Amino acid sequence: MSNDPADPLVVFTPSGKRGRFPVGTPVLTAARQLGVDLDSVCGGRGICSKCQITPGYGEFSKHGLSAREGALSDWNAVEQRYKDKRGLKQGRRLGCQARVQGDIVIDVPPESQVHRQVVRKEATARTIVMDPATHLRFVEVAEPDMHEPTGDLERLARALREEWQIEEVTAPLPVLARLQGALRKGKWQVTVALHRDHRGGPARILDIWPGFTEERIYGLAVDLGSTTIAAHLCDLRNGEVKASAGVMNPQIRFGEDLMSRVSYAMMNPGGDAEMTQAVREAIDDLARAVAQEAGIEPARIFECVFVCNPVMHHLLLGFDPVELGQAPFALATSSSMSLQARELGLGAINDNAQVYILPCIAGHVGADAAAVALSEEPGKSDDLVLVVDVGTNAELLLGDRRRVLACSSPTGPAFEGAQISAGQRAAPGAIERVEIDPATKIPRFRVIGSDLWSDEEGFAAATAATGITGICGSGIIEAVAEMRMAGLLDASGLIGSAQQTGTPLCVPEGRTHAYVIHDASATGGPRIAVTQGDIRAIQLAKSALYAGARLLMDEMGVDRVDRVVLAGAFGAHISTRHAMVLGMIPDAPLDKVTSAGNAAGTGARIALCNIAARAEIERVVGEITKVETAIEPRFQEHFVAANAIPHATDPFPELARVVALPDVSFNTGGGDAAAGRRRRRRG
Amino acid sequence: MSNDPADPLVVFTPSGKRGRFPVGTPVLTAARQLGVDLDSVCGGRGICSKCQITPGYGEFSKHGLSAREGALSDWNAVEQRYKDKRGLKQGRRLGCQARVQGDIVIDVPPESQVHRQVVRKEATARTIVMDPATHLRFVEVAEPDMHEPTGDLERLARALREEWQIEEVTAPLPVLARLQGALRKGKWQVTVALHRDHRGGPARILDIWPGFTEERIYGLAVDLGSTTIAAHLCDLRNGEVKASAGVMNPQIRFGEDLMSRVSYAMMNPGGDAEMTQAVREAIDDLARAVAQEAGIEPARIFECVFVCNPVMHHLLLGFDPVELGQAPFALATSSSMSLQARELGLGAINDNAQVYILPCIAGHVGADAAAVALSEEPGKSDDLVLVVDVGTNAELLLGDRRRVLACSSPTGPAFEGAQISAGQRAAPGAIERVEIDPATKIPRFRVIGSDLWSDEEGFAAATAATGITGICGSGIIEAVAEMRMAGLLDASGLIGSAQQTGTPLCVPEGRTHAYVIHDASATGGPRIAVTQGDIRAIQLAKSALYAGARLLMDEMGVDRVDRVVLAGAFGAHISTRHAMVLGMIPDAPLDKVTSAGNAAGTGARIALCNIAARAEIERVVGEITKVETAIEPRFQEHFVAANAIPHATDPFPELARVVALPDVSFNTGGGDAAAGRRRRRRG
Repeated sequence: MSNDPADPLVVFTPSGKRGRFPVGTPVLTAARQLGVDLDSVCGGRGICSKCQITPGYGEFSKHGLSAREGALSDWNAVEQRYKDKRGLKQGRRLGCQARVQGDIVIDVPPESQVHRQVVRKEATARTIVMDPATHLRFVEVAEPDMHEPTGDLERLARALREEWQIEEVTAPLPVLARLQGALRKGKWQVTVALHRDHRGGPARILDIWPGFTEERIYGLAVDLGSTTIAAHLCDLRNGEVKASAGVMNPQIRFGEDLMSRVSYAMMNPGGDAEMTQAVREAIDDLARAVAQEAGIEPARIFECVFVCNPVMHHLLLGFDPVELGQAPFALATSSSMSLQARELGLGAINDNAQVYILPCIAGHVGADAAAVALSEEPGKSDDLVLVVDVGTNAELLLGDRRRVLACSSPTGPAFEGAQISAGQRAAPGAIERVEIDPATKIPRFRVIGSDLWSDEEGFAAATAATGITGICGSGIIEAVAEMRMAGLLDASGLIGSAQQTGTPLCVPEGRTHAYVIHDASATGGPRIAVTQGDIRAIQLAKSALYAGARLLMDEMGVDRVDRVVLAGAFGAHISTRHAMVLGMIPDAPLDKVTSAGNAAGTGARIALCNIAARAEIERVVGEITKVETAIEPRFQEHFVAANAIPHATDPFPELARVVALPDVSFNTGGGDAAAGRRRRRRG
Repeated sequence: MSNDPADPLVVFTPSGKRGRFPVGTPVLTAARQLGVDLDSVCGGRGICSKCQITPGYGEFSKHGLSAREGALSDWNAVEQRYKDKRGLKQGRRLGCQARVQGDIVIDVPPESQVHRQVVRKEATARTIVMDPATHLRFVEVAEPDMHEPTGDLERLARALREEWQIEEVTAPLPVLARLQGALRKGKWQVTVALHRDHRGGPARILDIWPGFTEERIYGLAVDLGSTTIAAHLCDLRNGEVKASAGVMNPQIRFGEDLMSRVSYAMMNPGGDAEMTQAVREAIDDLARAVAQEAGIEPARIFECVFVCNPVMHHLLLGFDPVELGQAPFALATSSSMSLQARELGLGAINDNAQVYILPCIAGHVGADAAAVALSEEPGKSDDLVLVVDVGTNAELLLGDRRRVLACSSPTGPAFEGAQISAGQRAAPGAIERVEIDPATKIPRFRVIGSDLWSDEEGFAAATAATGITGICGSGIIEAVAEMRMAGLLDASGLIGSAQQTGTPLCVPEGRTHAYVIHDASATGGPRIAVTQGDIRAIQLAKSALYAGARLLMDEMGVDRVDRVVLAGAFGAHISTRHAMVLGMIPDAPLDKVTSAGNAAGTGARIALCNIAARAEIERVVGEITKVETAIEPRFQEHFVAANAIPHATDPFPELARVVALPDVSFNTGGGDAAAGRRRRRRG
């Protein structure tokens, strides 16, 4: 850049960045010096055409410029060759070829802006600068000289230093074994997939192609949950999600919740290794599936970012999780991990693929919570925000600019439809919405796959393909809350009998009652009912969640939060109104309760797309104050106190269909009231 | 250390290092601050007892001290406990427990001097400071604290930082998987095998033991030659060689010399991989054998240093050596390599063992030559030294403090007994010394395994066990030189007939003649003769060697060298007098021709025992000027000119048994004279 007012002024749109440059400066160079988002893979050699720009000769007045034809150097042979070979839109120039001659406005078209926003969430848009750990880099390498003998790798390293400012490089042996052939085939020009470690140290050549390659390289962001494993396949050039897929965690056969798996490892010698192998195989399968869906070779996947809770973290890495099952819940390692995919036995993706695992916050608050913190940034919030990530375990973050607290609460898998008599995963055919008329006590519902309510015309036809197969997490939440508001359930969570509630839909089931939402048993179909056991499971889960939030609020010295963010796939589908009726989360104005979608997965994508985010989350995790629910007596108090279902009436009547009826109370003298206290704290 | 003259003066023997220290300073601390060689594994906790010292209360006058009883703190409970448990010699104290109270002389006994000299060579003693890349380190680790959750690895890292000044550590997953168990079993005390990389970056935990371990850890220095692979097993604490072993390089079945193997790789797809697998398996076998000989588990081997020529380097690493077979002889990489043994598929030694491969000097001058440079240090020589490492390829270094030149010469395997009709490896039963009476033309010889000459009494009995099986490299050199001096061979290398030489031992063999050294064929035993083909093979080999030396001398602008160092196992056994008769090496005063033994192997041991030597040889290699014999026309000239066997008379008559007879010349009109010129330069 120049300070000489006689030098031409260059203004880039849409960024508005501007500066003066000596005559003859390539547009790409000017863009780089100004930090303008203009792509280039070949480093300015007119090969990759990623740096296309549109000179804006016409836009004089707006920018106060007297730009004219001739403000850029003439169309040149390199541009003509590229146009002949691959085509170039009318008016476009190559930024590496066109040189500044006079004042000019230069527009960078969207496809040349590689670093464009990639992560958008429902409520807020989030800008992620694309700067993944792994880039493609094209270089020209000096030929060997017998009089100055150096290895091919050493000359490649010199080229990367001179052309891409990469200080030091290394390469795995299988890549080194292909180096000499690639250099000669490419006539001393090669493209390398180069991985930098955000902690420093040598960059690593993960792959090499002769000459300039049009290959795309991909990364996988994996949210490794106790129940499900979800993966997003991202184009590492622009962050675009090419495909997403999820599978059940096969470890479920060793135990539904985390502590069952820890127990399995304790009781069965080699049990941890069995679970490690199962989850690694599932990840391999998932990588293959997501690659197939995107129509790419799995070997084009060069990076993998994992977020997971501590037990999954240990089981993925091959560590016995037994220490996580007992105080003081010591992690083998809490730091982030940078590994070779090979070390994890991952065989589907590229042989030299790199793995990054986010740091854990504590023995109960894992890399998944770190990913939520990276995505939701409570530490950058002006108001006090409670971030709740509901999965088999719930992770909670409470904080603002001054301080962030974190804890984990063992909600169990009830919110995911497990441990519910008619429960199922959120899949087509599952009941996801429930309403109960407080007067007639008759339910209506919607199932995933159709927008129609069950009492609307055409519902039977619309659901014929999927059937009505069960009730998912968000469905059971709504059902329980609606039952409470319809007077079918008292504050202690007891379902009334048909006599007590006045509806034949409340049927005896053992010594308790169940409420029938859907009954197709006459025609051989399923009967979907909410049993007393289901209510208890939901009560235990929601009490744990609420108690965790209260504990953090105590620690912070507040009795209310400004806003609540529900993260997790479940958080995206849950009715916040019903969640508050149920007492899952502290009361907050309804418009201050938002869903962040799969925030852990988003955090994984951010760490995949931006190398600086890795350093950032490692710093942030170090600053978060961990609160250990397992040893905090107040957690137990909050947990017991939260067992009741507080709101007999709708706390948000303006949103409700009807005004609620008077509260009810049932007493069957049953032995179920102490269930909350019976619940064992299993860490 | 203190500058206060009132503080006690401490003098250490045998080093003589001295300094003043405040009262109460532990002796171990004083030793460390003065750089005195006093061992400690446990870091001063009275556990390892490696820091034993002997207070020298009596040696007052010698050191000008008024030392007295009481100059050290009293014998304490830790020392008593150690003495009760394991015994402590009379007069010994533990350096970590005894504290300075007054002026004192402290003797460090040899067994407490871990850094003692370890590498001794025949001619010169070389002091290597023991500071291997991998050390055992004992640490006390903080217990986990739920209120400050950190991983076990993070607390171990903190302990290593505080107790051993290790800035950053990492660990492979299988070690991390054992970390939690070891810490708890060892009651938060563990010993780790810690590997530092001389280039910086995190130290790596290769293994972990609960509490303090008495385990020894070992390293393997491997000299990977074209024909033989030799390994020394060293104790990484004191550098002691516990066992040595050698095997034939199994790649010999793919080609005897390097260029035949390069050709094999070129002609047979996958041939390079075949050879890579063969050599890796042989190294595994060798590691197992050498460990068995030393009576240790191979898994106790944590480090492996390799020296080898460039073709072996590439074949070990799994790189196709084809580029090394043609100009410009480009290496895939010339830098040193730090690898996991696992990456090389080495399975016999510890799973987490580290490999270091010395840098290559050029496409023809490999890591073996670098190792010779590390061992012989021509760049530190005041006079001009020629270092010749004779193997299947000969590497030559010529230089002094000002400049060092290097080249490689393709001698072929004749000097190792290959390509010789009765040739064999240097093993019991092989003829290693030959003398021919110039008057009677009758030979006498010695075989490996006996000190008797064949014409001495008891020879038959002494060799009955081994038999007389063939002739090894040093034997054939002597035989050819003696034949020349006895008038059986003319200057062109032609063997005379029985008539021409006057001895019936010169017998016809095809169109040429052979000289019979030993004939037991009448009793079914071997007939060992030197054939015309053997002479030609030796001529080709010695011409290549001599031409390489001459080329370096031309480049240096000298026509003589001050001294010659013969390296290599062959160099250790060769008669320098006979070598000069043959014209293998430039003439030099006989007392200036020394053997360095297996200098490449010594260099490997140095790099194994001292981490700083790795940085040093990497720097030195960068400063060596490489001379490429293959493209240098003068090499051809020197090669052709060197074909003759110049010295018909003994150049060192004072050492010879008899005065030589007049020179001879034979002419059979045979077509063998152009053999030297027919020899293809194969890089």
